[in-house]
Formats: sequence, structure tokens, C-alpha cells
Amino acid sequence: MPVLLVECPDQRGLVHAISGVLLRHDGNVVGNHEFVDAQNGRFYMRTEFDGPWTGDAHEVGERIVAETLAVLPAGARVRLARSVPKRIVVLASREHHCLGDLLLRHQFGGLNARIEAVISNHAVLGDLVGKFGVPFHHVPAEGMDRTAHEAAVAALLEPIGPEFLVLAKYMRVLSPAFVARYPSRIINIHHSFLPAFIGAKPYHQAFQRGVKVIGATAHLVTDDLDAGAILVQHVIPVDHTHAAQDLVRAGRDVEQFALAQALRLVFEDRVFLAGNRTVIFD
Amino acid sequence: MPVLLVECPDQRGLVHAISGVLLRHDGNVVGNHEFVDAQNGRFYMRTEFDGPWTGDAHEVGERIVAETLAVLPAGARVRLARSVPKRIVVLASREHHCLGDLLLRHQFGGLNARIEAVISNHAVLGDLVGKFGVPFHHVPAEGMDRTAHEAAVAALLEPIGPEFLVLAKYMRVLSPAFVARYPSRIINIHHSFLPAFIGAKPYHQAFQRGVKVIGATAHLVTDDLDAGAILVQHVIPVDHTHAAQDLVRAGRDVEQFALAQALRLVFEDRVFLAGNRTVIFD
Amino acid sequence: MPVLLVECPDQRGLVHAISGVLLRHDGNVVGNHEFVDAQNGRFYMRTEFDGPWTGDAHEVGERIVAETLAVLPAGARVRLARSVPKRIVVLASREHHCLGDLLLRHQFGGLNARIEAVISNHAVLGDLVGKFGVPFHHVPAEGMDRTAHEAAVAALLEPIGPEFLVLAKYMRVLSPAFVARYPSRIINIHHSFLPAFIGAKPYHQAFQRGVKVIGATAHLVTDDLDAGAILVQHVIPVDHTHAAQDLVRAGRDVEQFALAQALRLVFEDRVFLAGNRTVIFD
Amino acid sequence: MPVLLVECPDQRGLVHAISGVLLRHDGNVVGNHEFVDAQNGRFYMRTEFDGPWTGDAHEVGERIVAETLAVLPAGARVRLARSVPKRIVVLASREHHCLGDLLLRHQFGGLNARIEAVISNHAVLGDLVGKFGVPFHHVPAEGMDRTAHEAAVAALLEPIGPEFLVLAKYMRVLSPAFVARYPSRIINIHHSFLPAFIGAKPYHQAFQRGVKVIGATAHLVTDDLDAGAILVQHVIPVDHTHAAQDLVRAGRDVEQFALAQALRLVFEDRVFLAGNRTVIFD
Repeated sequence: MPVLLVECPDQRGLVHAISGVLLRHDGNVVGNHEFVDAQNGRFYMRTEFDGPWTGDAHEVGERIVAETLAVLPAGARVRLARSVPKRIVVLASREHHCLGDLLLRHQFGGLNARIEAVISNHAVLGDLVGKFGVPFHHVPAEGMDRTAHEAAVAALLEPIGPEFLVLAKYMRVLSPAFVARYPSRIINIHHSFLPAFIGAKPYHQAFQRGVKVIGATAHLVTDDLDAGAILVQHVIPVDHTHAAQDLVRAGRDVEQFALAQALRLVFEDRVFLAGNRTVIFD
Repeated sequence: MPVLLVECPDQRGLVHAISGVLLRHDGNVVGNHEFVDAQNGRFYMRTEFDGPWTGDAHEVGERIVAETLAVLPAGARVRLARSVPKRIVVLASREHHCLGDLLLRHQFGGLNARIEAVISNHAVLGDLVGKFGVPFHHVPAEGMDRTAHEAAVAALLEPIGPEFLVLAKYMRVLSPAFVARYPSRIINIHHSFLPAFIGAKPYHQAFQRGVKVIGATAHLVTDDLDAGAILVQHVIPVDHTHAAQDLVRAGRDVEQFALAQALRLVFEDRVFLAGNRTVIFD
Repeated sequence: MPVLLVECPDQRGLVHAISGVLLRHDGNVVGNHEFVDAQNGRFYMRTEFDGPWTGDAHEVGERIVAETLAVLPAGARVRLARSVPKRIVVLASREHHCLGDLLLRHQFGGLNARIEAVISNHAVLGDLVGKFGVPFHHVPAEGMDRTAHEAAVAALLEPIGPEFLVLAKYMRVLSPAFVARYPSRIINIHHSFLPAFIGAKPYHQAFQRGVKVIGATAHLVTDDLDAGAILVQHVIPVDHTHAAQDLVRAGRDVEQFALAQALRLVFEDRVFLAGNRTVIFD
Repeated sequence: MPVLLVECPDQRGLVHAISGVLLRHDGNVVGNHEFVDAQNGRFYMRTEFDGPWTGDAHEVGERIVAETLAVLPAGARVRLARSVPKRIVVLASREHHCLGDLLLRHQFGGLNARIEAVISNHAVLGDLVGKFGVPFHHVPAEGMDRTAHEAAVAALLEPIGPEFLVLAKYMRVLSPAFVARYPSRIINIHHSFLPAFIGAKPYHQAFQRGVKVIGATAHLVTDDLDAGAILVQHVIPVDHTHAAQDLVRAGRDVEQFALAQALRLVFEDRVFLAGNRTVIFD
């Protein structure tokens, strides 16, 4: 089912105008969400619709986008999301749990994406990936500077041209130059409820601080480490009996759950980026 | 801010038609929610809007309702919610925690309702209610049959004419005849996550069953005990160290929280009744 | 690390007596939990300890058990848990998510158990199981009565002699005779927060009832369907936008999480059965 | 029921030795918790017990403490908690919700403490406190430096001599000198899940950061703002529709819940301070 995604400066009559375009094309609205960011005067809308179109639905879609743009104020962005699985590449390191969860969902059609390849700076997960018939590329980072390593990764990505990169416990920091190639298209899972415990070893930080709750944050990656827009956060209670390694273990389930949920939202085109915040229509 | 509430059989063009009416009156949509119950072919919409009206806003409101009805299919219900506090009466028995929480919220303007009176079949909470300057009526039930007791309660309610009755741990079962006077206008808090542990002593049932989670359910009251449409449910984890009385104590916080949240939703006109289910726009 | 598990009628001095036995053998208590079920006058204790034993630690263990029994009242049960992975068989049907999660944990040593085999009444999951090098047995149930089908399953189990059976969304009801072979040794995941929605199609029941929370329950299997002692329950919030099939999807994550957590507790010997309730030391 | 609280360097035989002391006095252990902080080699134990003592139970208690100390290594701390309500003073500012909740619990015997007085730097809550018959002292801070203001507060506290101070949304930072008078005896509620959003206006920080979860932290107060040992943390999910003021409102319920729970733990003598972490036996 096509999904119309609209973002523009707020003004009176937007819903009426946009719904009018769909109506002219005999579109039947099945689900509709709007949000007005009053503080910034910005309007967001996501509309699922179907229609009686036979033949070239693509052409109808293009006309709907063009006509919608025509009724909106300057600065509008309009997009028609195709209901085909996104093409993605997963980056991982040594930890298997998030990657394994994604491979399972992928195998059984639950990811709404096609994993074109898995790239890792370690070889250890190659066997797991191979079980699921997904290409695995080991790009060792040892003895290489970051630029050289990223160039090697980029060379693998080049022919694939993925729509999204998923960092499934990828333990390396990406350079701004690398991130800039995939603006708002890299999804990371960080093992704390950000902005608590930014950076390395968050569970050890959490243990030191004596928190009673730990969590995981799925977010879009920007230049600034762990500062990208947040997609999903989940937490679980812990107590004094949890040593740092127990926090690590307990956190795994919530990490893979948060990442899987974030990917569903992104891959179903439910996420708008509003500055450094996300507007999510679920 | 006025809120337009629409419910009707689903058909193409509803959003466009309704937003057109608001636009003709220079209404500015601030928040908008729709939901299509595909299974039953039913459309629900809640729109917050403001406009440039001076003088008789009430008359504009009536015209908006009338014109909206005119563009909708047969069987539509349209209502303009007034942004004035609801007038309510609270029924209680012996337990203070939900009632106390409501009185506190009421006192500080956080309830979006005016408590016209508290009626109880026990005298014990009279002192608490009196502290907050709310009229308290003790209607003992002992030695009376249900009909007589309800008649006494009804006689107190008659001159008040409340919009809603709130059962804040009111431990008596209301008769169908009594319930029928307040269709979908009685809100109860039940101390289990319904439909588990219907009826009396749910915490003792929960203890016997050895559950690891207990909860509370705020729901609309119908003839059938604990079977009305659910508004809010919250749960908390428990374990084997909780004796039945510990479950009772632990449950109190979640009861008052669930009830307060349900009242906010109802009193802000965010709830539609869809058969025995609720559609809630929050 | 050895774990001493004690259960007996409560009386004064139990902790002192048991800790005395360990002390006599130079045992060092690393973790200790006790619980007194006051209602039933029953004492439960779980003690992790280590010691300076070289050579036949097994023999020391047997002496500790015997000496502990000697200081306890009649009716005591004492057991020393071996810290070796449990040997288990998983029964499944068509749904992959719980099974897949267990296979992943198993593969990476996170299950504290060895999956000796997977048995299913459908063939569809054979490919998944095969990826992980675990024996898969398809025992079709069609055209067979339950007795015959269970006999075929039992014939497969016979040579394996598993310590536990795990029902990972196994969609068949086991007969009392079959259950009796594995007393308190069959773990099931039921897709509702029991005792709500016992039996078939709990998500459809939940949808009809309009609940705002759904959940999953891992429990020990007894003769009475879905009535066994509860190990773990988890819930997630839902709303009116969730059709029955959305509840099914949303429930999967919580099912696999609850089952995995329950297995960890059982396989680490953290669970006592107290009538139809569980005492869990975590 | 008396509660024995023990903290000492870990060594073999502690449980046996301590339980032996209780046994010698015919003490019957009703509940027992131990924890060994392996990293720091420290042992913590909390034992609820009763006995057949008539007459001077106090004297028996003193002998139990002395004899327990005698069997423990150097550096042990032993304390017998009296089961009488703690004497406390509550400090507040303008916000009523935490204070109101405490007053309600206090009124109905649910706080396990006696509120000797409420002190506020604003007058606005005096009416509320008065309803519950608790002395209210308004100590304005305007035009005063912190030292002078704290001296005025201290002068009020002096004759009361409270065991604990509770900061129920007290919006002023206490000086190290003031804090030093109540070592580990001041409990604060901070409106974020620490260590995220330390300091002022955490909800506004949370809004800017676009978090999907907000929370509250009850903690012991130390010199370092919001850095004291954490007692309780609770969170609730939020989304893009929550403006900063909505976060404030949503957070209130979780603040008062976290504070009430923390006070229960402290006032029931369930909390040990282990460096900057808490060991909590619940």
C-alpha cells in the first residue's frame, strides 16, 4: 500500500488540501497521522492509502506527489514510499545477539528489508552469517588507520548501494566523512539509555554509578558520537546483585529488542527527522 | 480550545470533507487524530482547532457541528466538546488511596473536572473529603437491600446531575438499572489486569495463582461486572515474597495511577466507545 | 560452582545448621537466598558456594548433601546442582521466533543447556534447525490420534533421556500421561498473561476484549492446560490500532523474551516449586 | 519485629556465626537477606526475627548486637533497627504532588514515618499542609544568601532533631556544610533518570534531546549535586507529541511513585550504602 509522506511549514488548510489531492485520484485513506510541531511551525503527515489504479500505479504516484507539492507552501518535502523491502547492509563486530536476531527476522520475512551483506571488522561472526546465506565480508581494522579501514568498507558498499546501514553492535566510531555519505540513513544501537553513559563501556559506567535501570537506545548516526536523533529506547530494572558483566548480559535482550523495533519503524517509513528529534507515526 | 468529535461509517473523502467545514469557518487545526476500524467499517476522528472568533463562539460551534453532520453519511455522530471541567461525583467505600489522589489533583486543578460530591457507603473517608472542602455523603448500606441503597444514592445525585460517576474503589456492585442512568459515563478502577481475576478479592486470586505481574484496569461500567470497555491498564512485577496483603499494598499505586490516567483521557474527550472496545486519541 | 538446594518444613535454626555443614567442609558461601513460606510453614534455601576441594569434589558434594539432610527435619529435600548444561529437547510447531531465539543462544553458549534435538509436528522449521547442526525430527500429527502421536514423540525421547522438555510454541496439548513422565520438567510459553485468555487464540481473545496490555507467560506444564506454576510473565502496552494480527506480531518479542528468561532461571537451578506457585531466587 | 543489620569485611562462616547468635537467644529468623560485594570483599546482611522475649526486649537486642559484633571481623557495623516510625521533616518548594502524596500516606499510616514538620521556601503549600495538621514553616529565601537561609532552616530543625530529611521537589541546592549534618539521611527526588540530565530543568533537557523515555530518580544527597547513591528509578515512555510541559506533567506521577517507594525502603531499614551504590534488600 502506498504511503504519502509530507513535511512542510505549518499553515491553515494543509490536511484539507492534501486529502483533496488524494480524493481527486480516488485514493482511499486507510491510515492517517499528522503532527504539528508548534514550536517550530512545522507540519508532518503520513498517509496510507489505496486506490482503484490498475496499470501504471507508479505514474499515478508521481502525479500525486507533484500535485501535493503544488498545494503546499514553499519548503515542503513530499515523498511516496514504495512498499518494497529496503536494501540494507549490516555492520557488526564480535557480538552476535543483535545480528543473529536480525538474521532470523530476515530469514522469516519479518524485517521488511533485504540484508545485502554483513561487514565486520572481526571474522568471528562469519559462520553465523553464512548459515543464513547472507554474504559476509571480513574487513580487519588492525594495523590500519580509520581512513583506510573505512575506504575498504566503502569499496564493498559501493557496488551494493544500500539504502540503510545498520550498526548491530559495531564497535568502531565512524568518521564524519563516512557518515556524510548516508545522511540519516545509518541506524545504531547504543547500549545505554542516552544521554546517560555516552561513549565506551556504558554498562561499566552504569555499574559504577549504581543505577537501578539500564537501557538501550536505537538512534540515527550523526557526526557527533551517540548524539543522533533517538528512535527507540527501552529499559529494564537492575539491582545491586548485577555486577558489570551481569548488566552486559541483561542488556542484550533489550538492545536487540530496541534495534529491531527501530528498524521496523524506519523500514516502514514511519520516521521523520525534525532537527535532532524524531517524529514517529506508529 | 474546541474539540470536534466525529464517528460515522467509513467512506472515501471523510477527512477532506470534515477539514473543509473547519476551513470554511477559518478554523485552524492544531491536533488531529483519525482511526478507521476496518473490521467494522467505522471512522473515528478527533480534531482540536482554534479560530478567529470573537463574540458568540458557541454559535459558530453549533454551525460547525451542523455542517459537519451534513457532509457525513447517515449514522454519523458529531459533537463539539466544551473545554470546561466536567462535573463529577465520586463513589468510594473504605479505601482512601484513589480518592485521596483524586482530591489532591482536584485541589490543584489537575483533574479537568469538578468533584461535586463524594458519596460513600462508609463514614470513614468523610474526614479526608472534608479537608478538601468537598461535600461528603455517607449512605450506609447495612440492613438495606441494593435497590433501597441505590435509591438513596440516586436521590443525592438527582439535584447534582453529574456528567460522570467515578468509582474510586467503590466496593459495591451497581444494578443494571442504576448503570443504565449513566450510559458509558461511569468509570471504575478494578484491581486486576482484566480479564484476569474478575470479581471479588483479585489480589487473593492472584496470590493463589502465583502470578509474577499484577495490575489494575480502569474501565467503563456496563451491566456485566468488570466486563465494560477498558480505558487503561497498568501492571507491576511481583514475586513469591509478596503475600496477598503485599499485593494489595503494591497494587494501590498502580490503581490510583491507572484511574487518574483514565480520567484524564475521558475528561479531555479523548475516548470513543467502539462496541466493547475503546478508541483513545492521546 | 556447586549450588545447594534445600526445601523443608520451617523450624528455628535451619540457616545456622545448614551453614554449619558447609563450614565444616570449608565451603565458602558466595551467594545465599532463603525464603520462608509462612502460610505453609515451609523453608526454601539456595546456596552457591565454593571450596578448596581438589580431586573428588563429587564425593564432597555427596557428603554435604547427606550431612545437610541429617540436620534437617523430616520431609526435607536436599539437592546439589551440578554446574553442567542441562540436556533438553525442544518441541515446536510452525512458529519460528522462540525456537530461533533458543538456537541462537544455544549456538553461542548462552542457554546453559544442550539442545539434544528439536521435535516438531510440522516440517517447516527443519531447515532452520539444520542450520545450527541440531537434530530435527518431524513427527506429523495429521491422521493420528493424540496417543499415537505422543507415542511417536516418546519413542524419540526415550534414547535421549532429556532432563527438560521446552515447548517453544508447540501448539498441541499434551496428555496427562505424557506430562507425568516429566514432572515439573516441561516448560511452556503461553501467549497471554495467564490466567487471562487461557486456551486457544489468546491474542484474538485479547483483541475482542479490548485490552490495553498483552503479555506472555512461561510456566511449568501440569495436566491442567495453562494452569501450571508460573515462572515468568512479561507484558507490553497495546492500543486500538492493533488488530489481532498486530497483537500476534507484537507479542512475539515478549514471548521469546519471557521463555528465554524462564529457561535461564530453571537451568541455573533457581526455581523451587511450592504447590502451584514458584519460589525463584535470582 | 526487630531487624538486625550487619555490614563487614567478607570472610568464611559469617552467616553461620550470626545465625548462631540469634539462635542462642531463641530468635526465630523470619526473613533473611545477604549479599557479598565480591569486588570490594564486603558482606551485607539484613535479618528479620522474632523471639519469645517478654519484658525488656531492648536489653536482649543490645546483647544480640554486642554478641554479633564479637563474632565478626574488625570493621563490622551492627545495628538493630527499631520498628517505630522514623521522625522526618519534609522540605518542599512550590510543587505539590510529591508532598501531597506523602501527606496522604502519612495520614493513613502508610509512610512508616512521622512527619514532624514541612519547611518550604515558598508559602503556597502551607494551606495543603495545614489540612493534614502538620506544622508548616515558611522560610523565604529571597533576598537572603544561601548560608543565611540554611541557618534559618537549621534553626527550625534543631529542636526537632529529625532522623531523615526528605526533599519533596525542594528546588534549592543544599550546601556541603548543611548536607554534612545529615550524612546519608537526606533523600531527594530528581526528575530525570540520573545520570542523564543532571541539574536544572531536566524535562526541558529531555525534550531538547528527543528522548523516548523519561524518568525519576530517588537518591541520597551528597555534596555533589545529583551524584548521591541511587535508591529507586522509574521511567515512562514518551514521544514527539510531548512538549516540554507535557513531560513535566507526565513525570509527576513517576516522581511521586519513585519517592514513595524509596522512602518505604529507607524507613523499613532495607538500604545499605556501599560506597556510592546502594544495596537494597526488599
